Amino acid sequence: MANISLKAQQMPASAIRKLVPLSDAAKKQGIKVYHLNMGQPDIKSPECALKAVRENTLTHVSYSNSAGLAELRTGLIEKYYRKIGIDIDMSEIIITIAGSESVNLALQIACNAGDEVIVLEPFYTNYNTFAFMNGLTLKAIPTDIRTGFQVPDIEEFEKAITPKTKAILICNPGNPTGTLYSKESMLAIGEVAKKHDLFLISDEVYREFCYTDEPHFSAMHIPGLEQNVILVDSVSKRYNLCGARVGCIVSHNQEVMKAALKYAQARLCPPVLGQIAAIGALDTPDSYIQAVREEYIKRRNYMIEGLNRIEGVYSPMPMGAFYTVAELPVDNTEDFARWMLETFRLDNSTTMVTPAASFYKTPGKGINHARLAYVLEIPELEKALHVLEEGLKAYPGRRV
Amino acid sequence: MANISLKAQQMPASAIRKLVPLSDAAKKQGIKVYHLNMGQPDIKSPECALKAVRENTLTHVSYSNSAGLAELRTGLIEKYYRKIGIDIDMSEIIITIAGSESVNLALQIACNAGDEVIVLEPFYTNYNTFAFMNGLTLKAIPTDIRTGFQVPDIEEFEKAITPKTKAILICNPGNPTGTLYSKESMLAIGEVAKKHDLFLISDEVYREFCYTDEPHFSAMHIPGLEQNVILVDSVSKRYNLCGARVGCIVSHNQEVMKAALKYAQARLCPPVLGQIAAIGALDTPDSYIQAVREEYIKRRNYMIEGLNRIEGVYSPMPMGAFYTVAELPVDNTEDFARWMLETFRLDNSTTMVTPAASFYKTPGKGINHARLAYVLEIPELEKALHVLEEGLKAYPGRRV
Repeated sequence: MANISLKAQQMPASAIRKLVPLSDAAKKQGIKVYHLNMGQPDIKSPECALKAVRENTLTHVSYSNSAGLAELRTGLIEKYYRKIGIDIDMSEIIITIAGSESVNLALQIACNAGDEVIVLEPFYTNYNTFAFMNGLTLKAIPTDIRTGFQVPDIEEFEKAITPKTKAILICNPGNPTGTLYSKESMLAIGEVAKKHDLFLISDEVYREFCYTDEPHFSAMHIPGLEQNVILVDSVSKRYNLCGARVGCIVSHNQEVMKAALKYAQARLCPPVLGQIAAIGALDTPDSYIQAVREEYIKRRNYMIEGLNRIEGVYSPMPMGAFYTVAELPVDNTEDFARWMLETFRLDNSTTMVTPAASFYKTPGKGINHARLAYVLEIPELEKALHVLEEGLKAYPGRRV
Repeated sequence: MANISLKAQQMPASAIRKLVPLSDAAKKQGIKVYHLNMGQPDIKSPECALKAVRENTLTHVSYSNSAGLAELRTGLIEKYYRKIGIDIDMSEIIITIAGSESVNLALQIACNAGDEVIVLEPFYTNYNTFAFMNGLTLKAIPTDIRTGFQVPDIEEFEKAITPKTKAILICNPGNPTGTLYSKESMLAIGEVAKKHDLFLISDEVYREFCYTDEPHFSAMHIPGLEQNVILVDSVSKRYNLCGARVGCIVSHNQEVMKAALKYAQARLCPPVLGQIAAIGALDTPDSYIQAVREEYIKRRNYMIEGLNRIEGVYSPMPMGAFYTVAELPVDNTEDFARWMLETFRLDNSTTMVTPAASFYKTPGKGINHARLAYVLEIPELEKALHVLEEGLKAYPGRRV
């Protein structure tokens, strides 16, 4: 029996998905599981996107150009990016297999094996997975739950930068924290990137989910950083089309785009039917985006207030995306999450949360933090929080 | 301006796609280009696959399981693999983003950076790209156009194996050669893999395109090699659904599948709309597959006979897929292909071929070989071959 590679053995398992077998087991026992763990919204995709798929007239689902269908690229340029003040041409956008491929490509283009990438901690756990796959090291700069995980003093970046640092990777608004970075913070990060000539890889897939009155400030808007910014984007979140697997990589840097095209050609093309959905989604009325945003604001307010009413729980108020990272009064959120799925039952139900330790790189950090998504309707959220509260009271590893 | 990684700079560009700008330029001048260069068939997708997409009732295109939709996995197990004598369960199949992701995963699971993979030369050019991306070295064993690129003496494998060899990667039927390996050849390769405990990565995406009366002999059927075989498969070619981007990785080796799931989770899920097409395609009538096969046999016979009638051209008779690698009477097929696109015109048309040198690893090999696909209808093939013949007569770099 041949042995698999050491790399494949050591590849980190998804922290978000590894509790799924326990939740499946609970469901098999007839237990209702409230999913606060998932980033999968329950909101319908826009009708124009669904219609584009249903009414497609393809007789042959053949390859598209490796860079994506021209209609989608021009549509994104003209109907989407121009509207939000990002001015790009066809050579500056390549359609990817969702944001996931876009991040992975950006890391490979920016870094050789052995290089370092700076992230703000807690960070999206698959950043670590992609870094691992490419032999890169994430250098995490801690942020503080008490200040809403905001960008720390820029001196912290200076301390973290070494000769091996090639990029800063940010997520704005952030998964898992829901933190939205201000224009000032973005400009400060831009200064660091400029000073050390680093790539700034900016994952902005939650751009439509900002809950302030300020417009979202994209890394593409940082003056003088045009050649260093690589934008990671997706239609998955914007249009509730997570399964379409369509995103893009955008940069004014032609060397970056030429390299991205080589990688894109190696996997032939992005999914064509998903691209058709994305073309349809370009005509999504503003009212859809607005309604989704308002719904999330309601849910967020409900959940964050509910969390902070539970004794020993603390959550900042996230201003973007649809997550928060909260502090729970437990010894260890992974043990707690397992215990909830395996042992705790209230009215034949339980609540599932994502342990947040894997969103941290610094050992021991985030051990009593959990990521909670507000992707359920309020009546469901209400029950989920009630079960969570009772679970926390009963949990043997409780600590206040 | 930040510099991209050395790796991204050195990443090989697609040899198949790099002449596309020249062909686009010719078309802009109003020139008709006959594409013998592409592996994109002109045959319609099965109606049941198209219908499944048109009639889907999703209101929300959400993520599927990272391993793919259960309905597609069980459908493939029961409606497809069981019929061709491959007996697998749910833990032994993961849906991938087409065969491309499947090959890339298999290489990463089998090999660490620095390891070696044995391939038969000429090989699918993206094998080299994926090897490069993962820091692996392809060790190519030459095969001979005069014997139809068949598997050489097994001693050649023994000579190529070093302590760093971790896998043998084959494509059967083969892209670019169209060569079909006999059961005896497969068993012989299996013996080598067993003796040295190597993974045998078997890319069988052209399985339905075999033009002998013998059934295709899958690597999954090699006795005693169950723990070493990793099967790369796809619905792209079988059902003319190249743009759906749905394939799978199959293995009886549980360590392989556990690792594959970790990689699958990192990219969240395969394209859901493509999976819906693939579920529909499972009901493709045998008559469709049979009709496609008969059409290809006609085209193959027409093209191969036509090629061999041209002075100085030699092509073996491929017994699978829809390609051949032919020897042309030219100094260099890349120069010839460029000259055809840039300079040669007959009745306002030209023919495009793929230079085959990039399908070889051994320096200087394949320099006068071209890959030709018979994916056009016979009247088009006739014109394409006539233009090719006249081009060869007029080419300044002609050699006989």
